[in-house]
Amino acid sequence: MDKPLVRRHDGSFRWEGVDVLKYKQEGSAPFKDVTRQVLFESADLPAQLRYFEVAPGGYTTLERHNHVHAVMVIRGHGECLVGDNAYAIDTHDLVNVPPMTWHQFHAAPDAPLGFLCLVASDRDRPQIPSADDAVAISAPLKK
Amino acid sequence: MDKPLVRRHDGSFRWEGVDVLKYKQEGSAPFKDVTRQVLFESADLPAQLRYFEVAPGGYTTLERHNHVHAVMVIRGHGECLVGDNAYAIDTHDLVNVPPMTWHQFHAAPDAPLGFLCLVASDRDRPQIPSADDAVAISAPLKK
Repeated sequence: MDKPLVRRHDGSFRWEGVDVLKYKQEGSAPFKDVTRQVLFESADLPAQLRYFEVAPGGYTTLERHNHVHAVMVIRGHGECLVGDNAYAIDTHDLVNVPPMTWHQFHAAPDAPLGFLCLVASDRDRPQIPSADDAVAISAPLKK
Repeated sequence: MDKPLVRRHDGSFRWEGVDVLKYKQEGSAPFKDVTRQVLFESADLPAQLRYFEVAPGGYTTLERHNHVHAVMVIRGHGECLVGDNAYAIDTHDLVNVPPMTWHQFHAAPDAPLGFLCLVASDRDRPQIPSADDAVAISAPLKK
């Protein structure tokens, strides 16, 4: 493994040797103010651990896929839609996103939402709803 | 999946519906003051995310194995031995433990050390050194 054995956190959710990436290509699907950092990926591990950060008021893409997400919030707070319900989420809370379940993460208006997301390395691509379907799916979220 | 979709953190590194387990069977290998919680494991995921907490002054077993560990400290600080070196580690630092590399985590004398540890679900059992070998392997740790 080429990565250093220990990579230090800089105190603001950036890490030595970890690039801050675009969440997705602009225009590929609706989202707002999200960054992505890949903390662990390796040929020796069948899974990846990523860190996503949603700026205050931002949100991830509403999507679903066969692969599951295992999420731990590690910064701030917000709300997540998983299936038919929305849930307030705070630092260190855990979220399971089961297969083919619509989901979306929203930061609070006054705080970022930073979370770890564990996925299988080998996984399917997300599906996104039509604009009309998205309105109905996201109805449980607080407006 | 039977688990609730959202499991809340209680503010002290315990989670709804997550049991606090013995780290290992007493007498199986040397360790001191460690607990284990399995945060995510699922037939849908080829990996597990566990939370280990080492009480102040405690330490995990000195061991090695073919499977890798991907670690993030989320509470307190301490020191880790990985291979030939020891490293000070603090909250949100990342640690890679490569295959067949001796490793051990120590909490500081004045603080717990809590860390997430990502592993493949299908993995080999740890090896432990003889008592004499352990002395040489752990030489880089501060005494």
